[in-house]
Amino acid sequence: MRTFRLTLEYDGRGFEGWQLQPAGHPTLQGALEAAFLRVTGQSVRVLGASRTDAGVHAEAQVASASLDTALAAPALQRALNGVLPPQVAVVALEEAPGFDVRRAARSKLYRYRIWNGAVPSPLRRDRSWWVRPCVDLGAMRRAAAHLVGHHDFSAFRAAHSEAKTTDRTLREIRIDGESGAQIDLDVHGDGFLRHMIRILAGTLVEVGRGRRRPDWVIEVLASRDRRRAGVTAPPEALTLVRVFFDSDGKSSSSGPGPA
Amino acid sequence: MRTFRLTLEYDGRGFEGWQLQPAGHPTLQGALEAAFLRVTGQSVRVLGASRTDAGVHAEAQVASASLDTALAAPALQRALNGVLPPQVAVVALEEAPGFDVRRAARSKLYRYRIWNGAVPSPLRRDRSWWVRPCVDLGAMRRAAAHLVGHHDFSAFRAAHSEAKTTDRTLREIRIDGESGAQIDLDVHGDGFLRHMIRILAGTLVEVGRGRRRPDWVIEVLASRDRRRAGVTAPPEALTLVRVFFDSDGKSSSSGPGPA
Repeated sequence: MRTFRLTLEYDGRGFEGWQLQPAGHPTLQGALEAAFLRVTGQSVRVLGASRTDAGVHAEAQVASASLDTALAAPALQRALNGVLPPQVAVVALEEAPGFDVRRAARSKLYRYRIWNGAVPSPLRRDRSWWVRPCVDLGAMRRAAAHLVGHHDFSAFRAAHSEAKTTDRTLREIRIDGESGAQIDLDVHGDGFLRHMIRILAGTLVEVGRGRRRPDWVIEVLASRDRRRAGVTAPPEALTLVRVFFDSDGKSSSSGPGPA
Repeated sequence: MRTFRLTLEYDGRGFEGWQLQPAGHPTLQGALEAAFLRVTGQSVRVLGASRTDAGVHAEAQVASASLDTALAAPALQRALNGVLPPQVAVVALEEAPGFDVRRAARSKLYRYRIWNGAVPSPLRRDRSWWVRPCVDLGAMRRAAAHLVGHHDFSAFRAAHSEAKTTDRTLREIRIDGESGAQIDLDVHGDGFLRHMIRILAGTLVEVGRGRRRPDWVIEVLASRDRRRAGVTAPPEALTLVRVFFDSDGKSSSSGPGPA
């Protein structure tokens, strides 16, 4: 058996998220496993660093797959790209003995894009959430600072989430709104609960709009009650930008969570 | 009658171009005239600075419309945006007495986006043309230099184009490929024949790929024969970026052509 490390770019529209679902529900894992089957004739398990939600995009998701094949890595990459739907591409593929993406992934960086113009932007609507102006970036940044660190994020997960633990570590939230009406929320964390980043975005926008004060998020966090946080912001504005690994890419104690 | 100047952003997918067509063929002009009818109850003629092709986008198309209305400009803008499909937005609207966009438009800047990565990019495929690497930007620039100026562009127009004159002035072609695998062709001209920019893009890519030498385009231009030029590059990679006007926005001698 040879193990490969894949870097994937995808447009999440039209997929019900990363994770495999019953037949008739297109997923990214399913599309990749079908591509391996067509190319190699084998049922191959493809594991992803982060389980992106339905509609969420990736600039660089990382996955691992183990299989028997005589193909060299470049030939395997070309063959996979030849049969994958155009919404998915293997942008890099290399042999990586012993690589287990779920153990090796150390943290992930997601970007949530907000279009903050007075008028909706047709050319951005596939990738952004339109929020009317009068957003106070300073207030959003003060609120975000309360969320960074190790916390129980129960208030920031989908109501029917079944994660075993609800503690997560947010390493950083950067809010970049200097370039006109586009606001990027860059959220870097070890792992995320289901819908966590979208609920964070919905909550920070409540503060940015002035409906809540920045320190309200302290109460929301302490409540551990999903109903206290903001709305779940729409998925199409969220992109997995990068997965970080230890330099050796092997040892790990905390597994990645769904995002 | 009051005359208004509109600035429009649109995603061209799903439209059969700017210019009005028979019922059942959605166009941008048709969508705007339908929005005016719904908002004001009047049949209003909306004229655009450039007749973008089917599938071509606009960051800032400029249009004019004359009608009787008691609405203030901001209220009219809000009302139009409230009824337009989400692929189109009026990003600016102001009263402009005597403004005739077809006479006042002096020149237009279009951007043709090429994705020049080794692998297709799912997140760029709605807005770019994928061309495999090994493109020689220096050769493309030398070829482009031969096309700038006042020429008969018969070789660079759609086979069934019916323009009365085929002379056009290309003011500048800028080829920006410094930022990695993305190449932008910025084409600035007084007016364009049907498909002209897409044929220019297809022709310059032939040179960039090394299939033709830069001075081949001199022969193509001189031939006045559409069959001598490169392919018509796909429309979704083309965007109308800006329309230029004289400072007074009134006098004009050369009308804009279709693009």
